[in-house]
Amino acid sequence: MSMPTGPGPGGGRRADAVRNRQLALQAATALLAEPGTPLTVEAIAKRAGLGAATVVRAFGGKDALLDTAVSGLLEPVVHRAGQLLAETTPDQALRTFLAELITFQSAHHAINDQLDGLTLPATTALRAQLVQAVQEMITGAQHNGTLRTDLDPTLTTTLIGRTAYAIARTQPPSPELADAYLTVLLDGLRPRRAI
Amino acid sequence: MSMPTGPGPGGGRRADAVRNRQLALQAATALLAEPGTPLTVEAIAKRAGLGAATVVRAFGGKDALLDTAVSGLLEPVVHRAGQLLAETTPDQALRTFLAELITFQSAHHAINDQLDGLTLPATTALRAQLVQAVQEMITGAQHNGTLRTDLDPTLTTTLIGRTAYAIARTQPPSPELADAYLTVLLDGLRPRRAI
Repeated sequence: MSMPTGPGPGGGRRADAVRNRQLALQAATALLAEPGTPLTVEAIAKRAGLGAATVVRAFGGKDALLDTAVSGLLEPVVHRAGQLLAETTPDQALRTFLAELITFQSAHHAINDQLDGLTLPATTALRAQLVQAVQEMITGAQHNGTLRTDLDPTLTTTLIGRTAYAIARTQPPSPELADAYLTVLLDGLRPRRAI
Repeated sequence: MSMPTGPGPGGGRRADAVRNRQLALQAATALLAEPGTPLTVEAIAKRAGLGAATVVRAFGGKDALLDTAVSGLLEPVVHRAGQLLAETTPDQALRTFLAELITFQSAHHAINDQLDGLTLPATTALRAQLVQAVQEMITGAQHNGTLRTDLDPTLTTTLIGRTAYAIARTQPPSPELADAYLTVLLDGLRPRRAI
């Protein structure tokens, strides 16, 4: 009698589960980059070539699946913000990061458009880290004299967040508009005396 | 034999039609100021105390009703822009008008949020006039040396339109955020040498 080699039926089911998770996650991530595509379990399942029940079973629900997909996209953005804060001056970090953030948001409208009402703990935590990083850039630039100090940092972070996203979601995406926005915003944020 | 005085049956129907038009228009205008309220014929009819069929008959359809309601709201805004252009300097007109526009948009989210896909000729014409007026303020301010000339006026108008609306739709409305936005925007739009 020979011992079975390779995964038995249990191992096969586990391998299938891992594969289904990956397919569902890839499909959800792809749909997050397509403006106007509804982020339903059915749409994700269809894109993944799986049944809707399989997608739900793989993640325990739509919220958990989208939380994994969105946080997978946001994690490198948050990492990049921290990297810029560590490697360059706060004002240069802000300029570089905003340009990259607009490009990212422009390619992932659905992240803000279609996630209302879902429970997304990992995404919520990463968004808070993103806001925190931008606020650190702003207060850092205020401290080193490259950003006006007559505006509240929290208010300034909100102002930047709202307006940058409005520029990012312009269809079709316009690099010229993004450039003009960053020019006006960052000139407008300079200390009055320093210009 | 005495002649009938006052409206006869025909006159009564005309008077009813005028009254129904007014009630439907008032209801639609009120709903345009309520964030999150769906602008359906049913919602408008319910608010007006009329039947849905009566509302449709009064205007010939939802599009015509909303076009009348929205253009009734936009007309004074467009008039105000022209008034400011006539009465003050272009840069002062821009500053005053943007502050008022943000207040108006903040009170009428639905004008931009729920009119996609409708045929609204009067509204479309007034929006074009509004964009034209802002562009006149921008080119006027460029000519009198109070606004930077290194940015394309059309691009600058788009930039202002997008970002002002993003600030206006912030919930709850924040006058502090609107002030900070106008400060940063208008300082950022100044000629570099003049500051």
